[in-house]
Amino acid sequence: GSLSTIEKSPPKPRREQTVLTIDTMNPTVKKVEYAVRGPIVQRAMELEKELSEGMKKPFAEVIKANIGDAHAMGQQPITFFRQVLALCSYPELLNDSTFPEDAKSRARRILQSCGGNSMGSYSASQGIDSVRHDVARYIKRRDDGVPCDPDNIYLTTGASDGIVTMLKLLVCGEGATRTGIMISIPQYPLYSAALAELGAVQINYYLNEQKCWSLDISELQRSLDEARQHCNPRALCIINPGNPTGQVQSRQCIEDVIRFAAKERLFLMADEVYQDNVYAEGCQFHSFKKVLFEMGPEYSNTVELVSFHSTSKCYMGECGFRGGYMEIINLDSEVKAQLTKLVSVRLCPPVPGQALMDLVVNPPQPGEPSHEKFIKERTTTLCALAEKAKLTEQVLNTVQGISCNPVQGAMYSFPCITIPEKAIKEATDNGQKPDMFYCMKLLEETGICLVPGSGFGQRDGTYHFRMTILPPKDKLKILLTKVKEFHQKFTQQYS
Amino acid sequence: GSLSTIEKSPPKPRREQTVLTIDTMNPTVKKVEYAVRGPIVQRAMELEKELSEGMKKPFAEVIKANIGDAHAMGQQPITFFRQVLALCSYPELLNDSTFPEDAKSRARRILQSCGGNSMGSYSASQGIDSVRHDVARYIKRRDDGVPCDPDNIYLTTGASDGIVTMLKLLVCGEGATRTGIMISIPQYPLYSAALAELGAVQINYYLNEQKCWSLDISELQRSLDEARQHCNPRALCIINPGNPTGQVQSRQCIEDVIRFAAKERLFLMADEVYQDNVYAEGCQFHSFKKVLFEMGPEYSNTVELVSFHSTSKCYMGECGFRGGYMEIINLDSEVKAQLTKLVSVRLCPPVPGQALMDLVVNPPQPGEPSHEKFIKERTTTLCALAEKAKLTEQVLNTVQGISCNPVQGAMYSFPCITIPEKAIKEATDNGQKPDMFYCMKLLEETGICLVPGSGFGQRDGTYHFRMTILPPKDKLKILLTKVKEFHQKFTQQYS
Ligand SMILES: Cc1ncc(COP(=O)(O)O)c(C=O)c1O
Ligand SMILES: Cc1ncc(COP(=O)(O)O)c(C=O)c1O
Repeated sequence: GSLSTIEKSPPKPRREQTVLTIDTMNPTVKKVEYAVRGPIVQRAMELEKELSEGMKKPFAEVIKANIGDAHAMGQQPITFFRQVLALCSYPELLNDSTFPEDAKSRARRILQSCGGNSMGSYSASQGIDSVRHDVARYIKRRDDGVPCDPDNIYLTTGASDGIVTMLKLLVCGEGATRTGIMISIPQYPLYSAALAELGAVQINYYLNEQKCWSLDISELQRSLDEARQHCNPRALCIINPGNPTGQVQSRQCIEDVIRFAAKERLFLMADEVYQDNVYAEGCQFHSFKKVLFEMGPEYSNTVELVSFHSTSKCYMGECGFRGGYMEIINLDSEVKAQLTKLVSVRLCPPVPGQALMDLVVNPPQPGEPSHEKFIKERTTTLCALAEKAKLTEQVLNTVQGISCNPVQGAMYSFPCITIPEKAIKEATDNGQKPDMFYCMKLLEETGICLVPGSGFGQRDGTYHFRMTILPPKDKLKILLTKVKEFHQKFTQQYS
Repeated sequence: GSLSTIEKSPPKPRREQTVLTIDTMNPTVKKVEYAVRGPIVQRAMELEKELSEGMKKPFAEVIKANIGDAHAMGQQPITFFRQVLALCSYPELLNDSTFPEDAKSRARRILQSCGGNSMGSYSASQGIDSVRHDVARYIKRRDDGVPCDPDNIYLTTGASDGIVTMLKLLVCGEGATRTGIMISIPQYPLYSAALAELGAVQINYYLNEQKCWSLDISELQRSLDEARQHCNPRALCIINPGNPTGQVQSRQCIEDVIRFAAKERLFLMADEVYQDNVYAEGCQFHSFKKVLFEMGPEYSNTVELVSFHSTSKCYMGECGFRGGYMEIINLDSEVKAQLTKLVSVRLCPPVPGQALMDLVVNPPQPGEPSHEKFIKERTTTLCALAEKAKLTEQVLNTVQGISCNPVQGAMYSFPCITIPEKAIKEATDNGQKPDMFYCMKLLEETGICLVPGSGFGQRDGTYHFRMTILPPKDKLKILLTKVKEFHQKFTQQYS
């Protein structure tokens, strides 16, 4: 009978005895997606391994253009920055006569603001005092004299940390009053990932691909009005210069966005990690802070703003150090106290990253021994990036079925690609997104690693990929040629 | 009439126009507390500033014994570690003949595993491959040959990061099925802070102060049984050696805890950041991993365990670099994939911290040029800590009204203090916890900065403070004498 069957049943499968399974884990974590390090990248790493083990492939090397990681692509660090970091790491070197005096004096100053004169001490949770002061001076200089209070500066573990922390403060409510956060589509997927984890509502506004990925206020309004039907929109995130889209927003656009935020009572989050990466003629970086203050006290005394910066991008590209800062404007003082408390739980951002951030905001000055070399290195890097931005746009636009906006800034091109119906069908039959199918094929056939547009978001029925402009020029040329050839072949194959 | 009143009412107060206020911010963040950097520490910083501005105080300097920050207290870094970090920061130094060859070869090896041979590249999100392999070899050596899979190693931004990440995976459910996490009382307040932020239920089990802060299984059972009435207990956290309590758990105790976790189906989280900080005779560090595997496959194949380590403690005390790792045992493979995805959102832990972790698990070997110096430096530091542990216990136990367990390990003493009824009344009348009142008075009168026991949790009606044993010996002696005098005076004053 059924009873004896039950008695004789084999021991419970292991799965049921496990505390933590996919069914019993935090459901918000499961919703997180992060394409920049997704399946394409994992496959690229496998391919690299297979190549190194001598396996035969239709290509000799994997070229990674999936992530904004400049040094990994061969960009050289700024000598002065690394000298100071070495001096701070091993202060015995302060007696070494081969180090320039300005590097030594910077190192001494940083060490003096560390507990026990060591980078091995925890710093204040908000960041080292003198570094926050240097950041404030940098911002004031950058913004043509708009004042900056060091008390409003928080050093972070990369910009990522600051972004997640600020979003965390903003999220509350349930159901129709749940916090909604407006993000651009296409977006940098840290945003969607953080919102998923926090259980906030992601509110999409679309950048205008036809107008060089610019931002239309009417689209902001549409997106906000729709969102108000089902959640409580509280913040508006802008990435400028843009990732993955490479646009640089105009001063006018920024002013309009600020006016919109003021009118609709939205907290502004300005991701300005690419502030030194502007290449296109006629384009210029305008910080939200500066524009806000130029709009007068009606705005500068009321609009809540946070701006993020990082050591990872610009001309330095020091991603591994995880340095960054955020500046908060008009943050309620009680909330600020809560923010300070919250960051204290993690003790402090990495001190070498803080030191590096200090050097970025306080580089060698005219007259100092390292100034000339610093300028030369910075210029070389930024010129090379500008050249590669141009090259990428030009070559991609020669391909029938690929159309690409100018890379005005940042480090990425996000071209629109035409995928034939047959390919779309084959992909969907395989349960794959068509641009993932495309990028995976590209990788297997050419060794080129890009990220499908679906990882960043795109208008339904359009397809894109994101590629960085970071590979050295010769490799970038090979890459572009291969993409061109692949696209032609792919189009033919599926027509 | 009432209409005209409304029309004439002054403009809304600014508060109502602010998006983010204390009333509209994330309520879980508000619940977070973190005593190690709380009001006492803020006041200590103010006092330091006042002293430096020439204000007269009943003391000449502030002595901070509030946080386990060794370098800030004057402990010197390990020369070899810093040499390698300098070499990795500024590889030009590889041509410098004054650096020892073993430091250079370590630096070369680390750089070879960095993208573009630069610490400025993002690493794999799980951590640099070769570092994870070195960690695995270290664990196997430490655990007398118990195997360790590098795939189970995740490098982290300090142990804090790993702890929060693992807790995050575990939390789910609502109301009576909400995840509960068992933590020791007293505890390191990162745990309570993280649980508050995640909205998990904190389940307290009390360490046995009478038995040297040991852990009784009967108390675990009591605490678990009570918690099962109102939440879903899923994990058990143990700190060994203990913070703030300084105990080192016996092998027998660890075995009992593992058996308990297996029986009750709890995920084990072992915080072992003080694994090299064991001073008391007869005490020894036993890792949960090793004991688990010695208990045989019935346990080692089923019990889910994560163990945390850090560069911040032990003999190196390199807090500022934010290095750490965790090892996961028997984590469900689908959950592991989710973990890998989750950590990829933050890109990677700081690379200098990873490099430092590599050096900790792979220090100079016998026969290598730096070996002798390394051993000497490590021994000096650990012997000094052992001596200060002894001294602290001895002096505090000479004070009537203070009673203190031996500091068997870690870096803290957590003595029980008798606070007179009158003082308790005065404190409560002021809305202050009695031990906060005590510590604040101690600070104002002597310049000594300790943390009240209430920041870590204690049995109702008992009072404690936590002090680190990190100040240099001469300062520690002054500190202990001042605490003794203060306690006598305080007791007299309120009797
Ligand atoms: C727009 C944007 N914001 C933030 C980040 C995070 O950078 P990090 O955390 O390295 O500072 C990135 C990295 O690519 C980015 O592109
Ligand atoms: C028990 C315990 N766990 C974890 C940590 C976190 O250390 P870190 O994040 O610096 O590695 C500390 C720091 O004091 C600690 O005492």
